[in-house]
Amino acid sequence: MTTEQAPSPGISRRRLLGSAGAAGAAGLVAGGAAGAYASEAARETPEPLTSVGATAVPFHGGHQAGITTPLQAHGHLLAFDLKAGANRKAAAALLRRWSRTARQLTAGEAPPDDTGIALDAGPSSLTVTFGFGRTFFGKVGLDDRLPEALAPLPHFVSDALDPKRSDGDLWIQIGADDALVAFHALRALQREAAGTARLRWQMNGFNRTPGATDRPMTTRNLMGQIDGTNNPKPTDDDFERRIFVPEKGEPAWMAGGSYAVVRRIRMLLDAWDHLSLERQEKVIGRRKSDGAPLSGGTETTPVRLDKVNADGSLAIAGAAHVRVAAPASNQGAAMLRRPFSYHDGFRADGAPDAGLLFIAWQADPMKGFVPVQRKLDLGDDLSRFLRHEASALFAVPPGCAPGEYVGQALLEG
Amino acid sequence: MTTEQAPSPGISRRRLLGSAGAAGAAGLVAGGAAGAYASEAARETPEPLTSVGATAVPFHGGHQAGITTPLQAHGHLLAFDLKAGANRKAAAALLRRWSRTARQLTAGEAPPDDTGIALDAGPSSLTVTFGFGRTFFGKVGLDDRLPEALAPLPHFVSDALDPKRSDGDLWIQIGADDALVAFHALRALQREAAGTARLRWQMNGFNRTPGATDRPMTTRNLMGQIDGTNNPKPTDDDFERRIFVPEKGEPAWMAGGSYAVVRRIRMLLDAWDHLSLERQEKVIGRRKSDGAPLSGGTETTPVRLDKVNADGSLAIAGAAHVRVAAPASNQGAAMLRRPFSYHDGFRADGAPDAGLLFIAWQADPMKGFVPVQRKLDLGDDLSRFLRHEASALFAVPPGCAPGEYVGQALLEG
Ligand code: HEM
Ligand code: HEM
Repeated sequence: MTTEQAPSPGISRRRLLGSAGAAGAAGLVAGGAAGAYASEAARETPEPLTSVGATAVPFHGGHQAGITTPLQAHGHLLAFDLKAGANRKAAAALLRRWSRTARQLTAGEAPPDDTGIALDAGPSSLTVTFGFGRTFFGKVGLDDRLPEALAPLPHFVSDALDPKRSDGDLWIQIGADDALVAFHALRALQREAAGTARLRWQMNGFNRTPGATDRPMTTRNLMGQIDGTNNPKPTDDDFERRIFVPEKGEPAWMAGGSYAVVRRIRMLLDAWDHLSLERQEKVIGRRKSDGAPLSGGTETTPVRLDKVNADGSLAIAGAAHVRVAAPASNQGAAMLRRPFSYHDGFRADGAPDAGLLFIAWQADPMKGFVPVQRKLDLGDDLSRFLRHEASALFAVPPGCAPGEYVGQALLEG
Repeated sequence: MTTEQAPSPGISRRRLLGSAGAAGAAGLVAGGAAGAYASEAARETPEPLTSVGATAVPFHGGHQAGITTPLQAHGHLLAFDLKAGANRKAAAALLRRWSRTARQLTAGEAPPDDTGIALDAGPSSLTVTFGFGRTFFGKVGLDDRLPEALAPLPHFVSDALDPKRSDGDLWIQIGADDALVAFHALRALQREAAGTARLRWQMNGFNRTPGATDRPMTTRNLMGQIDGTNNPKPTDDDFERRIFVPEKGEPAWMAGGSYAVVRRIRMLLDAWDHLSLERQEKVIGRRKSDGAPLSGGTETTPVRLDKVNADGSLAIAGAAHVRVAAPASNQGAAMLRRPFSYHDGFRADGAPDAGLLFIAWQADPMKGFVPVQRKLDLGDDLSRFLRHEASALFAVPPGCAPGEYVGQALLEG
């Protein structure tokens, strides 16, 4: 596990609280907010924070945070395009700024000129994950370092993609268990892009609040299903190999990195909710109540695709989502699904604008998302209730060590 | 306080879980989801839930829940218009359905044909609050019961209102500490409107996650300020009189009810974030770090509007928000502010589509929101950083007793 239960060392936002107040009251505040919050911090004694706020996920490490981190309650996805004239040097400076700020924020520290939105809260499991899109490389003269794995995703029959909300040169995934902590990070990181990159699209998502249920790991999606059960597990022998680019992998700067496929998938909830429970369970191949496969057992019992009912029918139907998506049906193809639900109100046609910000992580999209989605696209019973509305693919480099920044081996190597 | 820490009695969603599974596995599922979830519930032993999920706010009571209830982490606001031909009887039937479902959901029970979205979670402090807009009364032949207090709000200079996201015949406020529990309620209630009312507008908001901070009551907004400090307190002598229509009040069906002013107020965050901390604090009249008034003390110290600095200037500036909004500057006018923050991504101009779903509660809008907003509209330093984009006013009847429904005295009395 990459989480620790204690507030990280350094100057926490909580410790800054009282001192900023003191400075303000004494009329000592000079310029921006930064000086004020930082001035007398060392004098303060940290107060205990409850566990939701106090949980910190380290920014530094072999892999970036936000990939194997447990699902967070709030997520923001941001894609940026480089501004005209932004070169490799400018991009490197941006990634350096972003990495520095991400490190501070994830440790619960206040960056310079802080907006104050996250004051009082701890890091609340904040993670910030950076990625590069295919279009990034040509713009900064790094065509020779473009990974083969960033080849454009193929077209799928059921695609109804909005190009304005797809793709992008740079990507940030923000996750946190508190909405204000997540929004605070979004504002701080967006501000730092200003001279170099322009927001292309942005999406908000959510998962269950910590403590709303005792159920661990898996969450429910807006169709009501338990989602995430048959994900590859960090304890699996082949987990690292499936999800992360190996040490001797290609290109070298991606060793320890991963590829993120991002799909905004709207759910046709009015149609879905009209199905009987029995039909809904058949479409997926698992029970809705507890996620157990229709081939028997409990949520974690391995799926038996060959199980036949007394009447001779397949226990898990031929077009059931878990059958069509299973590694066994796709020459072993597997990915780590780590989604957020989304709900952006209602569409003009009265239908909810809601669904899944589907994010799949894998060492190679051609051995993960692509073959599985090809199969789902044609033969999955669930597809009738889904609309893929936006799509993107990003190379997410390995994590960085203290003093380094994410993407350094790409931009300086 | 209206919260209780134990799961409410009755059939909880948790207890239904295992049994629904059992029914499904045995192939006993007949029609919709309802039967399955409810079938063998009584056999199950409830498991303990952690406190966030287990907290239930009673639906029944003298006042509706969601007014004095502590802020919840997630909110949905929904306005509906009656469909052509929907009469008083149809409206009464709708309010009866809605009240029954709200009671079930807030107790953590599963309504018939449940979508399952909230399975595993407890009630998570869910509240559902119903209101009537001015346009409701004529449509159902109840013009004679239209409260004077529902007179249209006056036009304000700084208004830039979108009529499509303003007003409405009927209003629902949903609040919960878990996003899936809140969305679950939204779907269940919207479905029940189907034959009778059509969604007019819908907005999503949020506050801090329970446990992200140890700070009680007050929250921060997206400008980074502590918000809610000088709200009327339930312990104030005049709290009931200010916020709720008195027992002998007019009209009789509103006795124990309250009026909700809803304003979608966008924050011009890019401009705001460019101000120095000192300027930001002057605009409000309180310190950003800890919310203490610039006239001295801590967050809860009474504001001293007459306090003068050593240099002769007012400690709280002439156009500071807390001066212009204070009861002392408005012949005692006061309201209970109970907002959600919102963030719906970014606008075409690159600015965040974010701000406050401002909800003000009072016994009479003419002695609450209206005079205060008139004053703020002309002389408040904060106004320059705000855009009022939508507006509505609803009569929120008293709570109902078991067996009754909200609005019964209006619709049947
Ligand atoms: C909104 C869209 C989707 C929904 C609601 C959905 C829902 C589910 C559910 C309920 C399960 C069973 C529980 C689990 O193992 O997690 C599942 C499994 C799975 N899904 Fe999806 N899914 C969606 C889209 C996709 C897409 C686009 C892909 C990949 C292209 C995918 C790949 C998988 C895989 C690989 C499994 C595990 C199958 C197994 O090994 O048993 N899903 N999904
Ligand atoms: C996005 C818009 C707004 C923001 C960010 C905002 C922010 C604040 C802040 C930070 C405070 C001080 C802390 C507190 O006592 O809660 C405050 C106080 C107050 N605000 Fe606002 N406010 C907004 C809009 C409004 C509106 C529209 C009204 C009513 C028309 C209003 C009425 C009040 C009142 C009555 C107080 C308490 C003043 C006192 O008695 O000290 N506010 N607001």
